[in-house]
Amino acid sequence: MSELSRSSGVPVATIKYYLREGLLPQGEATAVNQADYSELHLRRLRLIRALVGVRGLSVSGAKEVLAGVSAHVSDMHQMLGIVLGARPVDKAAAKPSRTAVDEVDELVKAVDWQVSDHAPAKQVIAETLTTLRSLGVDVDWQTLLPYAELARRTATLDLDQLQDTDDPLDRAERAVVLTVLLEPVLLSLRRLAQENESARRYGA
Amino acid sequence: MSELSRSSGVPVATIKYYLREGLLPQGEATAVNQADYSELHLRRLRLIRALVGVRGLSVSGAKEVLAGVSAHVSDMHQMLGIVLGARPVDKAAAKPSRTAVDEVDELVKAVDWQVSDHAPAKQVIAETLTTLRSLGVDVDWQTLLPYAELARRTATLDLDQLQDTDDPLDRAERAVVLTVLLEPVLLSLRRLAQENESARRYGA
Repeated sequence: MSELSRSSGVPVATIKYYLREGLLPQGEATAVNQADYSELHLRRLRLIRALVGVRGLSVSGAKEVLAGVSAHVSDMHQMLGIVLGARPVDKAAAKPSRTAVDEVDELVKAVDWQVSDHAPAKQVIAETLTTLRSLGVDVDWQTLLPYAELARRTATLDLDQLQDTDDPLDRAERAVVLTVLLEPVLLSLRRLAQENESARRYGA
Repeated sequence: MSELSRSSGVPVATIKYYLREGLLPQGEATAVNQADYSELHLRRLRLIRALVGVRGLSVSGAKEVLAGVSAHVSDMHQMLGIVLGARPVDKAAAKPSRTAVDEVDELVKAVDWQVSDHAPAKQVIAETLTTLRSLGVDVDWQTLLPYAELARRTATLDLDQLQDTDDPLDRAERAVVLTVLLEPVLLSLRRLAQENESARRYGA
């Protein structure tokens, strides 16, 4: 266990806690192949750290996700849905108007995306459309069409990043880390690009 | 003042507070052209609401931004820099490594963007690269190049949205509202697009 702690950077006390809570499977202390065994634990520990530390899930939330991942190791689409499923943004939001909800459905239909009816991200978009309107800014679903096309290309890049590894646990961890941690990067790149575009359009 | 409150939706007590704090210029109670006068206050109130309510600035922060906007009404690039300048994301972050800072400079050089040396968004990217590496995920600045190109196109769409109006206060307000409120929308579109891309690549 102390070797696992050293190679993962996770304190022994935390590893024991994860074992007690059932996030990490119990190890056989007498296992013949210690290295292989540690390797599996190590990868699982990295995924737990990604879910709890990066993604901000509770221990019980992470446990649920891990169970889902284990049940769908051979189904990449299901697994990605499970590790990326929860809402990415958690701000106090306006209750979405019926119109806004319909508009998001129209948008999804227009771009012909295969997404679940109750995807939390659809709710976030509907809420924001509602908020924008309450502020007097008229952004409708057609305004979002070109943004959706750029988001589609971004997602293609994202999924390309997951091709490097065949190991399901590695993929799940990479999916969490890249999806969550690239968010501030993408928003910052947008901000820099706005500054650049503004300089080109309006700069001296 | 009660008419201003009615048309802006901002309570009289709040308007009085903004007047006291100097965010809103004092009005001449005996002004001949009451309608025009209210119109200016109304637009300024909307901008204050965008800065404080949407952007999350403090009253003194908003006051500084408003002073900057007033000083640069005829310089769109300066004005956008002022209203959009502060850090968009405010999470506990890793201190960026020297390498990561250099890499962000290389990225900006490679895409040939005109951005200020000390743009807070550059810091955010360097911090995230550092965090990703501490988690064992190797994302270098070359990985970010295609993301930067998509961010450039996104920013072009963003700035197109500001063309609708010639009024500097309206533009400043629209810039704040669209930049900040579209963030969760863009992240949600990315999430939906990931689900779609995953369904196409790995779905049954």
